[in-house]
Amino acid sequence: MDFTNILGFVAAFLTTIAFLPQVLKVRRSRSTRDISLPMLITFIAGITLWLIYGVMVKAAPIIIANAITLMLNLLILRLKIKHG
Amino acid sequence: MDFTNILGFVAAFLTTIAFLPQVLKVRRSRSTRDISLPMLITFIAGITLWLIYGVMVKAAPIIIANAITLMLNLLILRLKIKHG
Repeated sequence: MDFTNILGFVAAFLTTIAFLPQVLKVRRSRSTRDISLPMLITFIAGITLWLIYGVMVKAAPIIIANAITLMLNLLILRLKIKHG
Repeated sequence: MDFTNILGFVAAFLTTIAFLPQVLKVRRSRSTRDISLPMLITFIAGITLWLIYGVMVKAAPIIIANAITLMLNLLILRLKIKHG
């Protein structure tokens, strides 16, 4: 695997795992007031399309990264709806 | 342009523009307590690597989408550092 691919994998790993501390924070604090609901909805819509795109072009890294990002952001959305 | 490419562009547009309502919200409220700092730092690191990846593979859509996402998230980070 060349340097460019490694860079892409590290980038995908970071932009995916980034949402885990946000999930943990709002689970702990039960406070989501400062998180924008339009952001969450728009981002989740975009990630869902990326996931479909990944399936269509049969790209496993796109599918895996976006499936995890989608799951984490759906958790944040659920907590946002719950706590307001 | 085929359907798959259009899907990719719409996905990139949504995941990029998603951060604008978050910027506007925290600019207005001056409150960023519920936003995770580790999330912002990890996400910004990942987006920076995506941007470098885009330059290396000479992919204009990756460069443009990640440059805008980076800019918006740096604005959120600045407000997070300012308001805590």
